[in-house]
Amino acid sequence: MAATALYIQPVTQIEPLVVELCRAARAAARQVATATPAAKNTALREAAARLRGNRARLRDANCGDVEAGHTSGLSAALIDRLTLDDARIDAMASGLEEIAALPDPVGETIARWRRPNGLEIAQVRVALGVVGVIYESRPNVTADAAGLGLKAGNAVILKGGSEAFATNRAIAACIADGVAAAALPAAAVQLIPTTDRQAVSVLLRQRDLVDVIVPRGGTSLIEAITNQSAIPVIQHYAGICHVFVDDRADLGMAERIAVNAKVQRPGVCNAMETLLVHRDIAAQFLPQVAAPLRRAGVEIRGCPRTRAILPDAAPATDEDWRTEYLDLILSVKVVDSLDEAIEFINTYGTGHSDAIVTDSYAHAQRFTAAVDSAAVYVNASTRFTDGYEFGFGAEVGISTNRLHARGPMGLRELTTYKYVIQGDGQIRT
Amino acid sequence: MAATALYIQPVTQIEPLVVELCRAARAAARQVATATPAAKNTALREAAARLRGNRARLRDANCGDVEAGHTSGLSAALIDRLTLDDARIDAMASGLEEIAALPDPVGETIARWRRPNGLEIAQVRVALGVVGVIYESRPNVTADAAGLGLKAGNAVILKGGSEAFATNRAIAACIADGVAAAALPAAAVQLIPTTDRQAVSVLLRQRDLVDVIVPRGGTSLIEAITNQSAIPVIQHYAGICHVFVDDRADLGMAERIAVNAKVQRPGVCNAMETLLVHRDIAAQFLPQVAAPLRRAGVEIRGCPRTRAILPDAAPATDEDWRTEYLDLILSVKVVDSLDEAIEFINTYGTGHSDAIVTDSYAHAQRFTAAVDSAAVYVNASTRFTDGYEFGFGAEVGISTNRLHARGPMGLRELTTYKYVIQGDGQIRT
Repeated sequence: MAATALYIQPVTQIEPLVVELCRAARAAARQVATATPAAKNTALREAAARLRGNRARLRDANCGDVEAGHTSGLSAALIDRLTLDDARIDAMASGLEEIAALPDPVGETIARWRRPNGLEIAQVRVALGVVGVIYESRPNVTADAAGLGLKAGNAVILKGGSEAFATNRAIAACIADGVAAAALPAAAVQLIPTTDRQAVSVLLRQRDLVDVIVPRGGTSLIEAITNQSAIPVIQHYAGICHVFVDDRADLGMAERIAVNAKVQRPGVCNAMETLLVHRDIAAQFLPQVAAPLRRAGVEIRGCPRTRAILPDAAPATDEDWRTEYLDLILSVKVVDSLDEAIEFINTYGTGHSDAIVTDSYAHAQRFTAAVDSAAVYVNASTRFTDGYEFGFGAEVGISTNRLHARGPMGLRELTTYKYVIQGDGQIRT
Repeated sequence: MAATALYIQPVTQIEPLVVELCRAARAAARQVATATPAAKNTALREAAARLRGNRARLRDANCGDVEAGHTSGLSAALIDRLTLDDARIDAMASGLEEIAALPDPVGETIARWRRPNGLEIAQVRVALGVVGVIYESRPNVTADAAGLGLKAGNAVILKGGSEAFATNRAIAACIADGVAAAALPAAAVQLIPTTDRQAVSVLLRQRDLVDVIVPRGGTSLIEAITNQSAIPVIQHYAGICHVFVDDRADLGMAERIAVNAKVQRPGVCNAMETLLVHRDIAAQFLPQVAAPLRRAGVEIRGCPRTRAILPDAAPATDEDWRTEYLDLILSVKVVDSLDEAIEFINTYGTGHSDAIVTDSYAHAQRFTAAVDSAAVYVNASTRFTDGYEFGFGAEVGISTNRLHARGPMGLRELTTYKYVIQGDGQIRT
């Protein structure tokens, strides 16, 4: 109710609201950081039960958002992302239960050693503190981000898209009930209760109260937040992923990997966008791979040498090499050497996921050492860059940052560490 | 020579100069990242030899800076920091040799596991990329930061204080010769060849070319850089470190630790600034510890309960609890409980280094879990928070950041990681 009332408050009230919310998060974070795994897991399981028990209310709230979306002319794709049905509610609840079942990262000893003077030094994993998550239309992020952040011992501040506001509030209410059922502080998970965009600007200035910002959404959202934020931001940028088919590749394997990387789920960040083919096998391989790609509906855009072999391919421009299609489109380039492939990937890629298909040990070694990406594959599809596929469980996203977290960002990447040093009276001389 | 000419160029020339330098660093970084340990170590040892072989030239350059410093009225402390004598030149050279002798962090396998589908996933340590170091008067940072950054496989951009410009250039020339002797790219280590402050502003905007900024200097320098930077900054803020003497402490041990933490080297960030004493042992312990502290010349500022026991102590204000004295001054507070000590440390501390002296297992456990600092000690002096004391070797500083690097920041903290995934044709289904 209080939140609804905010709608009619003047804009100048947003700042104290958000600052107060961040202060509450900071205070809650200290308690969540030392909460037992059992308490955190209870909160997650109780929240899951509340999501399941309140399907009707969630769907009602969502209907309102979807109707408003239709009225305001959201695209069919965005309406689909926004829509919550029973299956998606179940998936959210199951997601929280899966997070509850993961090992607790807090308190893990990363390393421990003894110094000559007898000091025992342990590097121990601890919560990051206050995590702010800013995201766009998919309302399941509300549950995922809250669950991962809380399990990692953090207080979580959520700012969802305005088009999903009612839905997010209904989900957040279920989570709040779960948090209360576990006797954790109410400010452990907070949704910013306004759609006013100024709230984000205020949030991004609270460097003393918020430890990290994780934006989830398109490149323009991430850019805008990074440019504005006084708080460190962990970016999950686009994936312009490559598969390089070496002259020493098993072409049957290369075909299966290239087709899988492109068509198995083209709309995600670890799908291949550009295929690089060594000139020595191009005449044989390109027709071989083009056939199944085209059967799957893939449009091929090629460099001049590709088009000499595949005359039906459209010409690829420099713009194509820099585009994350997220669609059944593939740019193809013939390269003269492994080194040219590496150079091309490091120039046009986004440091996400890139693969070589080769039977050469030396080429595999050189590729994995020189390609500067979060995930570098030998003889496997780029589609495996994912928290579940890596064995981490649920993830916040795939970080394209170099600092702190790179690649799939799961529970551990939502923590930091401290050193605990045990002595028996040591002093420094 | 080119650098000298820049002095007389108009300010508008600074931007292309710095951008070009950052571009060169980015290109060099790819080569340094895959350089062999032998090549990097050769560069460091050759640089050390050049520092030793060019003592006279280094001292000449330094004399000019010191004279200019006298003229411009630098304080005696700053003149001392700035001054380079043979012993300091030797220490710089030895520092580089010690870095060369450390294990190479690049290529270290942090973790490796096998997935059910047979994929072998390795988390491998790799260079961060381009590291910018911005620092104040001490010229040894030029050699230390270059050495650590290079050894960790990075290209390094250095921006020293204008008062040490000639000295830094002379040191950087020795390092450049070492880099050349190892056939590494010249842009592996670059000193920004101007004292124009605009150069820092330009540097801090090169988010695509520079991966991290490490400021070394006082709080105001760090604040200014953090506020301005579009690049992630790793802060090394002040250390307001506490020792808490619990009611279950061995008071002889507590006395030795408190005196060591305060007086062994008061001007450094891991020295104690505030002593917290449990009320039950205050009447006995405060006179016991005050005697040796005062013999060492320490001025004591106390809370009212401290002053009731130590009437000569000056009154401590809220400002004292928030002050890093870096001097022979100590604020003292009597607390009612372990929880009050923890709360006080988490409120007034800077998350650097804090210690408890206790013989209670439960109190030690609670203190280490609840105090939210980079280094938390039981029965040892806070003075051990240091790369050498931890066994890391040389360090860039002590990070008070929570992201990426916390506590002593050595070679590993100047790296990131990537995942190398080896398959035999795996595709995602």
